[in-house]
Amino acid sequence: MTFAQKLRSVQQNNDSLLCIGLDTDPGKIPGVLSASGDPLYEFNRQIIEATQDLVCAYKINLAFYEAAGERGWQTVHRTLACIPRHMISIGDGKRGDIGNSSSYYAKLFLEDYGFSASTVNPYMGEDSVAPFLKNPEQGAFVLALTSNPGARDFQYLRVRGKPLYEHVVARAKKWNRQGNCGLVVGATRPKDLRRVRAIVPEMPILIPGVGAQGGDLRSSVRYGCAPDGTMAIINASRSIIYASAGGDFAAASRIAATRLRDEINTYRRAYFTH
Amino acid sequence: MTFAQKLRSVQQNNDSLLCIGLDTDPGKIPGVLSASGDPLYEFNRQIIEATQDLVCAYKINLAFYEAAGERGWQTVHRTLACIPRHMISIGDGKRGDIGNSSSYYAKLFLEDYGFSASTVNPYMGEDSVAPFLKNPEQGAFVLALTSNPGARDFQYLRVRGKPLYEHVVARAKKWNRQGNCGLVVGATRPKDLRRVRAIVPEMPILIPGVGAQGGDLRSSVRYGCAPDGTMAIINASRSIIYASAGGDFAAASRIAATRLRDEINTYRRAYFTH
Repeated sequence: MTFAQKLRSVQQNNDSLLCIGLDTDPGKIPGVLSASGDPLYEFNRQIIEATQDLVCAYKINLAFYEAAGERGWQTVHRTLACIPRHMISIGDGKRGDIGNSSSYYAKLFLEDYGFSASTVNPYMGEDSVAPFLKNPEQGAFVLALTSNPGARDFQYLRVRGKPLYEHVVARAKKWNRQGNCGLVVGATRPKDLRRVRAIVPEMPILIPGVGAQGGDLRSSVRYGCAPDGTMAIINASRSIIYASAGGDFAAASRIAATRLRDEINTYRRAYFTH
Repeated sequence: MTFAQKLRSVQQNNDSLLCIGLDTDPGKIPGVLSASGDPLYEFNRQIIEATQDLVCAYKINLAFYEAAGERGWQTVHRTLACIPRHMISIGDGKRGDIGNSSSYYAKLFLEDYGFSASTVNPYMGEDSVAPFLKNPEQGAFVLALTSNPGARDFQYLRVRGKPLYEHVVARAKKWNRQGNCGLVVGATRPKDLRRVRAIVPEMPILIPGVGAQGGDLRSSVRYGCAPDGTMAIINASRSIIYASAGGDFAAASRIAATRLRDEINTYRRAYFTH
């Protein structure tokens, strides 16, 4: 089963395009967890337990875990062990290096941690991305158009009449020989998301920026999905995991995730018959 | 003292532009170290001890250390403790993420590890790079033109008559408000290095790709240096650290580093009067 097939299957089975971003910030963890030996893990575990029937994927932002020092590696491992195997786990590290070095990062993400997929930066080209695409069952989401203000600096520069990010999309389409390449397009860029989906009708698109970053949910669903209403992965992080700062954080995350999943599905049913 | 001033000072004091890349591969470490509790560290320690008067900097490729799992973090810390404080240590992680996440990476690299500088990927623009430039004493080397084959995929795309990498260089020049921004340009691209140096006469340029990757040393020095014969950092990794596979690896690295430093200085004296 290719990565894209696995994604479609879990999105259909759980009837959800929602991905929860575990951008777990040690400074924002409810005080009730401070007695735990590994508060970051305990927080993640409870969030996953409370939401796993509502989502298709979890995304782990490595920046937060690496900043936790040597314990971070173990927290990532333990968190991943809580995610059911049929679900998608995304290692959000945005790596990319010369082939030799990239293969070490790919080994860490895909073999050691065992993520189902990784995010990768395209700037260094094919040999930097290839190690992340080696196994057809594990995917790579290539940064095309990101949700942050800095996306304006280079991603929109015009090359032969088209923005740079479209050239990245066209390349990623070629790199998708094994059905395991995807793209990242921010929810803050709905018109551009539509252009991307026109170029790659079926490839997975990871769409961050809904929630705290103010992305447009309706357009993300409408323009982000493949014709069958799957293949868009709508990521929300802070708006779900910090829905409550108290001891009820897990229950509150379930309420926030249910609401978001349902809203996504309302738009799916409006724009796609599935 | 800004990062650029610190770099110039150590290059002048040690009369060297050489940087040794500690791309330390567990599979390539001499067998004599296998009894050590932390062979990667022991290898690095001996290389640093044998070469610190011959170089201006050490570059630690994080891909290799992260792949070593939870021990990696500690090995990096211990290795950094061996590098004299007046020298440059470069955390080669090629990170870049939305501002919020990038600040976690910057915290890890600059505060936790305490590298003098980091390599950063420009694709996500200014807010992804800014956290690495916050402290004027610590630098960021922005990837402009890399030494790998994949550099062809995007870095040479023409935007308003100029290759994309020149737009990156022009931006990095603006980001250099505090005298701590540098660039990465591969030694495999001598003509382009000359163009970059013409745009930024004084900024530090990290030049990987000499040695195993076959970059052109003479041109790297000639076109990479600022007018005073400093500001180019010539990195070699495998050709120095694996100069011998036996118990004499440290002595062999000293011989290889001396030869390379001297060759660099021959070209410096030919092209620059200092």
